[in-house]
Amino acid sequence: MSTNQNLLNDVEEVLLMGPGPSSVHDSVYRAMSVSTLGHLDPYFIRIMDAVKVQLQQVFKTQNKLTLPMSGTGSAGMETSFVNFIEKGDPVLILINGVFGMRQKDVAERLGAEVDSLEFEWGTPVIVDRVKDRLDNREYKIVSMVHAETSTGVANPVQEVGKLVKESDALFLVDAVTSLGGMMVDVDKWDIDIIYSGTQKCLSCPPGISPVSVSKRAVEALTSRKSKVPNWYLDLSMIVKYWEGQKRAYHHTAPINMIYALHQSLYNLLEEGLEPAFVRHQKNHEILVEGLEDLGLQLFVDPSCRLPMLNAVVVPDGVYEAEVRSRLRDEFKIEIGAGLGPMAGKVWRIGLMGETCRPESVDRILDALKKIL
Amino acid sequence: MSTNQNLLNDVEEVLLMGPGPSSVHDSVYRAMSVSTLGHLDPYFIRIMDAVKVQLQQVFKTQNKLTLPMSGTGSAGMETSFVNFIEKGDPVLILINGVFGMRQKDVAERLGAEVDSLEFEWGTPVIVDRVKDRLDNREYKIVSMVHAETSTGVANPVQEVGKLVKESDALFLVDAVTSLGGMMVDVDKWDIDIIYSGTQKCLSCPPGISPVSVSKRAVEALTSRKSKVPNWYLDLSMIVKYWEGQKRAYHHTAPINMIYALHQSLYNLLEEGLEPAFVRHQKNHEILVEGLEDLGLQLFVDPSCRLPMLNAVVVPDGVYEAEVRSRLRDEFKIEIGAGLGPMAGKVWRIGLMGETCRPESVDRILDALKKIL
Repeated sequence: MSTNQNLLNDVEEVLLMGPGPSSVHDSVYRAMSVSTLGHLDPYFIRIMDAVKVQLQQVFKTQNKLTLPMSGTGSAGMETSFVNFIEKGDPVLILINGVFGMRQKDVAERLGAEVDSLEFEWGTPVIVDRVKDRLDNREYKIVSMVHAETSTGVANPVQEVGKLVKESDALFLVDAVTSLGGMMVDVDKWDIDIIYSGTQKCLSCPPGISPVSVSKRAVEALTSRKSKVPNWYLDLSMIVKYWEGQKRAYHHTAPINMIYALHQSLYNLLEEGLEPAFVRHQKNHEILVEGLEDLGLQLFVDPSCRLPMLNAVVVPDGVYEAEVRSRLRDEFKIEIGAGLGPMAGKVWRIGLMGETCRPESVDRILDALKKIL
Repeated sequence: MSTNQNLLNDVEEVLLMGPGPSSVHDSVYRAMSVSTLGHLDPYFIRIMDAVKVQLQQVFKTQNKLTLPMSGTGSAGMETSFVNFIEKGDPVLILINGVFGMRQKDVAERLGAEVDSLEFEWGTPVIVDRVKDRLDNREYKIVSMVHAETSTGVANPVQEVGKLVKESDALFLVDAVTSLGGMMVDVDKWDIDIIYSGTQKCLSCPPGISPVSVSKRAVEALTSRKSKVPNWYLDLSMIVKYWEGQKRAYHHTAPINMIYALHQSLYNLLEEGLEPAFVRHQKNHEILVEGLEDLGLQLFVDPSCRLPMLNAVVVPDGVYEAEVRSRLRDEFKIEIGAGLGPMAGKVWRIGLMGETCRPESVDRILDALKKIL
């Protein structure tokens, strides 16, 4: 007797307004189901090359080493640390949320000597405190999160980049949530190592992680004393598959996910980066106005709010999980809960990529009005 | 001016007869494009639970810790080592091809004290030599590859498992190419840690890696002295997302890839494991007969040939790359080249999963006849 069950027929279409994944455009779903090619097929290699160029455009970089890693955004994070850290390396992490803490955990596991600067959650990294620290100690890597998805805060990456440039450190940035929804300017901001995800403002299903690495960081990689302690994510081997005339097999790339990324980057570049940023900002403002009309408060000060991730304070006496449940069940809308110490205190409403449309804002405001 | 290019419209349908990816069933393509749900959505969690049960059936195991990792097969390999190795741990690796060598590289990077036993490529692991070694030294892990994709050899996993069981070591097996195409019996063969890929006999596009871990191995994991030096693949955290009543976010799972895996496992279980193994064996035999009729020779002795991966000796005077090129261009068939020291010496013809049909055998034989 078979207990074999196929659950896919009953998947409902949900408006994804959480902290990611975001809703996916039909063209990207179609891309996912284009015939699988071999990972060394000459035509697939053309697609890989096109994706690299697209990523350079979206990251605003000339970095040759710009490619999607075969894992979700957190694999990009792991890549960004494991390739550049050797045991005992001094690393400074700027922390004002879950994703900064995560970077610290990653770096420590790899044997780095981690220093951290912590800032109040819901407020941005304070540049002067970073300056003080950098004036007093040398680091191999200084790392921070651009869009802190756990709180909805935009951190001053460009300003910190200027400080790091004056030191010898490599500047490492998490752009998982920011890329495609707000300005990320790798070359101008002197970022050496950056990673992102696909399921946020790129609106591609989760599964791969764009990364870009500067020439300086590549030099640090090639002058390592020890092998990268992670075979799967070793960029020095992976580039031999992603670059050059003769491609060397490393691992089998996630072909159809790369199709999907190609399509989603195509869509974004057709719209244009600036127009996409304006769209994110505009819908964010309409959402905030509507939330305030409902008597709700944003967790973060307007001066440093992310456009694509809105942390909303749960009003006193409201059971936050029930609201999310009703949104999902009655209105087919997903929003996010608070993460870590923010659990129970905020909802996180995403306006990322394809989700970031006036219709989405209308739907969530209408639903919240009915529920609250 | 935009140089934005969309290359997906011109992807040709290629019959994938290389060492993977294999051809994908339409139902799996459709599954990939089912609406993306949130990674904590209650319905998605039901799908995750179903996938775990499906994987237990396919691996033939009761192991509670059985789940797909968010990366390709090599991420499963990395997972299988990084969670169980601490610096200085003695590890024995049995090597008779590229994928055994890869295991050695992975284990060494993680600081294991690696011993290896090497066997001639194209021949199987010799059980008596393993016995000798195990009689003389204790290991934390003994590791081997079931289906050595670089040579087409089936290794005696069950026999080695019996020996390892008599020692205290954990038994680690690469089942990337074997799973779904030939018997893999995790519980009966006393396998403690096993990983596979999706793009071989499961005929799901590459991107995730099924793993299964025995209770003994879980105990080894929980009694580690140091944290797993890989945040992304740390099973002790990942289980909190894949198991239990309340699911804790770790990383955003590759939702649509998990849909695809669910569908491909559904397809396999509908057919039945035994019938699928018989189909692989039968088509393999027809292929071999046809190849021999064309005057071609198999690289591996019939006693240890894999059904799903056929290494064919390139005849003298034939330029192997040109044959592959013509197959791809004129006949829309992909076959694989030799890997590592086998480069130029063999072709690798895959008969994996959906590819493993009489029509595929006819097409490749017909094409080779015309070319050679």
